[in-house]
Amino acid sequence: MHLPNKKITLAAKIAIMEYFKNRRTIRQFSREIPSDSLLREILDDAMRAPTTGNMQLYSVIVSKSPEMLEKLRPLHFNQPASQAPVLLTVCADIARFERWCSVSNATPGFRNFQSLMAGILDATMFAQQVVTIAEMHGLATCYLGTVTYNAPGIAEVLRLPAGVIPVACIALGYPAANPAQCERLPLEAVAFDETYPEFSDADIKRLYSDKDTFPDNRKFIEENGKETLAQVFTDVRYPKDTNEQFSDIYLGFIRKQGFDI
Amino acid sequence: MHLPNKKITLAAKIAIMEYFKNRRTIRQFSREIPSDSLLREILDDAMRAPTTGNMQLYSVIVSKSPEMLEKLRPLHFNQPASQAPVLLTVCADIARFERWCSVSNATPGFRNFQSLMAGILDATMFAQQVVTIAEMHGLATCYLGTVTYNAPGIAEVLRLPAGVIPVACIALGYPAANPAQCERLPLEAVAFDETYPEFSDADIKRLYSDKDTFPDNRKFIEENGKETLAQVFTDVRYPKDTNEQFSDIYLGFIRKQGFDI
Repeated sequence: MHLPNKKITLAAKIAIMEYFKNRRTIRQFSREIPSDSLLREILDDAMRAPTTGNMQLYSVIVSKSPEMLEKLRPLHFNQPASQAPVLLTVCADIARFERWCSVSNATPGFRNFQSLMAGILDATMFAQQVVTIAEMHGLATCYLGTVTYNAPGIAEVLRLPAGVIPVACIALGYPAANPAQCERLPLEAVAFDETYPEFSDADIKRLYSDKDTFPDNRKFIEENGKETLAQVFTDVRYPKDTNEQFSDIYLGFIRKQGFDI
Repeated sequence: MHLPNKKITLAAKIAIMEYFKNRRTIRQFSREIPSDSLLREILDDAMRAPTTGNMQLYSVIVSKSPEMLEKLRPLHFNQPASQAPVLLTVCADIARFERWCSVSNATPGFRNFQSLMAGILDATMFAQQVVTIAEMHGLATCYLGTVTYNAPGIAEVLRLPAGVIPVACIALGYPAANPAQCERLPLEAVAFDETYPEFSDADIKRLYSDKDTFPDNRKFIEENGKETLAQVFTDVRYPKDTNEQFSDIYLGFIRKQGFDI
């Protein structure tokens, strides 16, 4: 481990690595509101995350006022985590960069898929850095995937101009729960040496067996009246017609915001 | 700060926060190859990054063999950072999840834009977690944006099946340089309270003035024979026709890999 300019103890090094091993998403928040100075420090430090060509093709809208939170929560289907005292909507943003070009006698050409991808990557690298730094400060975080479902409504509330696309929403606050860590796939299911493997059916069953038999997941299957965990994902949580409906909405919104895709 | 189950000293806390403030991308690597056990630990710990619905819609291909690195580097235009001893190609991956569905009597519906976005977000959150953990272990990292430019060639070398899209490439190794930190925009250019602001031209000029006058950037303008820094971006680094050409290639590849976009 390399933490510049400071000697730290072995116990501290172990603690840092334990943070990464033990981290978990927390969906319940206390009423305590993180201070402006803490929020500012987290966002400022997170701006040191990598960014494509140092263009910083992202923005973040900080929602804390009761009025704005009240407008945003239904757009996140009022899911429990949306009750957090702070919602951070992280956006791919080529608008600000284009404005800089236009005041600098330069002609931008960023209304295309590659530039949008650069913005999506920049926004997500920044968002993940926010999550890590916030959690290390003792805050709880939860990404709200609904931000890509209801992007048009969220953009209207946040007054996002053309060239700005919501990509990730982080619910943020102090933890009011200490949930068990959920399961993950074994590393061999995710990381491959040199080339992508040709999985057999038996490989897949073996790699997903912990997931299939994880107690919370067994309960989840029963509650949803399904035979397998995969059916909960395909029939209940992420069904084809819903995925396609929200794909049309998101793509339509991206085009309306000026991208040629 | 909250690092579970361990008491750490104030000096250690300050050291951790200094890491985030002081981090920088490093593009030059020593010949030393990170050990398999260290790589494994980094990837395993990074799997605790958040992921959409705990679906883990990503994979990572670890390239370390001289033969594979020799094939990949030209696809990254032989940029200096591509000479790293390890290249990690992080992919959005719905293929493995679909295989699990098919062996679980479930019918997946993920060949759409929303599911691809979930995979892109999952891949990028994981990639950024890899970067942070690797850097905290003393490694140097650099994202290679070229991974989205030459996705078809990279997919062929790595034998990526349908449903798998390269999203980020991390060059990884031990540092052989200690570059100065580059400039970033002020926080007020990036983080906004409640709604997106209406920038005036004067606002933009002020927010970008540090960037415009940063000594390395002044040199960059001269070297490229341009009037402004923005022109270096629009005319040299990311010109419209190149962006559009690579957009067509990447979108075409995503469609060829089975996504309906």
